[in-house]
Amino acid sequence: MNDNFPAIIELLGTVAFTVSGAFSAMQKRMDIFGVFVLGFVTAIGGGTLRDILIGNVPVAWMRDMKTPLIILGTTIVTILFKKYVKNLKITLFLFDALGLGLFTIIGIQKGLNAHLNPGACIALGTITGCFGGVVRDILINEIPVLFRKEIYATACIAGGSCYILLLMCTDKFIAEAIAIIVVCTIRIIAIRRNWKLPSV
Amino acid sequence: MNDNFPAIIELLGTVAFTVSGAFSAMQKRMDIFGVFVLGFVTAIGGGTLRDILIGNVPVAWMRDMKTPLIILGTTIVTILFKKYVKNLKITLFLFDALGLGLFTIIGIQKGLNAHLNPGACIALGTITGCFGGVVRDILINEIPVLFRKEIYATACIAGGSCYILLLMCTDKFIAEAIAIIVVCTIRIIAIRRNWKLPSV
Amino acid sequence: MNDNFPAIIELLGTVAFTVSGAFSAMQKRMDIFGVFVLGFVTAIGGGTLRDILIGNVPVAWMRDMKTPLIILGTTIVTILFKKYVKNLKITLFLFDALGLGLFTIIGIQKGLNAHLNPGACIALGTITGCFGGVVRDILINEIPVLFRKEIYATACIAGGSCYILLLMCTDKFIAEAIAIIVVCTIRIIAIRRNWKLPSV
Repeated sequence: MNDNFPAIIELLGTVAFTVSGAFSAMQKRMDIFGVFVLGFVTAIGGGTLRDILIGNVPVAWMRDMKTPLIILGTTIVTILFKKYVKNLKITLFLFDALGLGLFTIIGIQKGLNAHLNPGACIALGTITGCFGGVVRDILINEIPVLFRKEIYATACIAGGSCYILLLMCTDKFIAEAIAIIVVCTIRIIAIRRNWKLPSV
Repeated sequence: MNDNFPAIIELLGTVAFTVSGAFSAMQKRMDIFGVFVLGFVTAIGGGTLRDILIGNVPVAWMRDMKTPLIILGTTIVTILFKKYVKNLKITLFLFDALGLGLFTIIGIQKGLNAHLNPGACIALGTITGCFGGVVRDILINEIPVLFRKEIYATACIAGGSCYILLLMCTDKFIAEAIAIIVVCTIRIIAIRRNWKLPSV
Repeated sequence: MNDNFPAIIELLGTVAFTVSGAFSAMQKRMDIFGVFVLGFVTAIGGGTLRDILIGNVPVAWMRDMKTPLIILGTTIVTILFKKYVKNLKITLFLFDALGLGLFTIIGIQKGLNAHLNPGACIALGTITGCFGGVVRDILINEIPVLFRKEIYATACIAGGSCYILLLMCTDKFIAEAIAIIVVCTIRIIAIRRNWKLPSV
């Protein structure tokens, strides 16, 4: 595991989130621009709301050409090879789980840098991981899937809490690795066993 | 009426807004996480948008553990005792009216502190009081009730205008008290007499 | 073309955007307050998100009474004379196209002032022009028309790209004029020829 590892996970996460947004748009028969925008907001929505809430502006994707270009490229590939990309369902799910874990940790780190309390940090991590999907669902006019199915945000909260606790007793690098593994493991087991939170 | 009075009203308002969001989520059969998030955004949505619009970041609920804990506790109680809470309809309505009045005044005060003009201040007050409910309705995929039924935002605008006018000729404390009473009275009369704004 | 020209175009654009929001609200039989709010968010939504994203707060409409008053006046006229305003469809479409062009350029200029890269500037311009309509459609609970029909955001992107390129080789005034003409022309031709982006 070297310095590039988080960057690679972030890249895979961005790709997976973009594909998820682009597919939602294609299912609703949006035009090409709509597909791109849905991919874009799904990938950057969480980080954007996080940056706005803590006043970290201009928001991240405006100061860095790389992310928008990755999203543009991913959207084009998704549109051109949509039949093949569909078959990568499991691969994409794994990217998504990895990205979710990493985005959660990134959000928490930004909260810690802003000297926020642990609860606010975990909330920021969860927002970074999940809010893109919420905006995606609002834009396609559905109740956000986050609130209805699967264990998703709960994985962020669990992994984020581990991260905060581990930071007190181990070094940052190990805490990051374990927290990402916790998020991924919960997501993967939840999907395989079809775990759901009870509805009320 | 002592220094704690506004704090108690804010607490009651937060509780009432949380319950309203949690009930909306339960009616849509969301999972436990969804119920909590809906309660949360309904209670803090207005203040969050207000803080973002005037650049008061990190937003209020991130710097203060109390509000998130109150919302968490209220959600748990609402879920556990949902049958009993339903019967408190009138009590909750009164809390909601009080909270609406106080939130409006808090929003206006933040606008005045930022040296904004009176129109912008009243807009900020109305946003603080009402926007949480708008987000709640967007998240459950309905046209915001704010735009369709009952006199709601209008009470904020009326009470807020009174507050601005009274500040010119009386002291802050009396202006606050009268403005909150105006908002509550309009809300209560509007509900009892079934007042509605005309649709166009 | 004198110094007042952009101000007049901005006024016409604000009026057209307000009317578009107010009509959407009336079609959904919202109350008078809903009609005003829809007109308001359609007119200022784009500029507000832009200002939030780059940290230009308090956002523009709070520091300037003129725009809210224009929107209020436009909403009242729209409600009172709704039958006549409906017949002005072509005039309003032309205002809207002019406003779209000018709002795009204003957004790009704010991005350039904040030293953002060209891609982020064009994104800001497109957001300034288009996001108001997206919020309008979310509030009336429809999939944003932006993503489904007509060439709209594409006109902003094309005009915005021209503007950035022209700034390198000509003076600001000529670049502005040409860019606005490009946006308008694309919009007008797209509507007359019924151009659409392909759906995927």
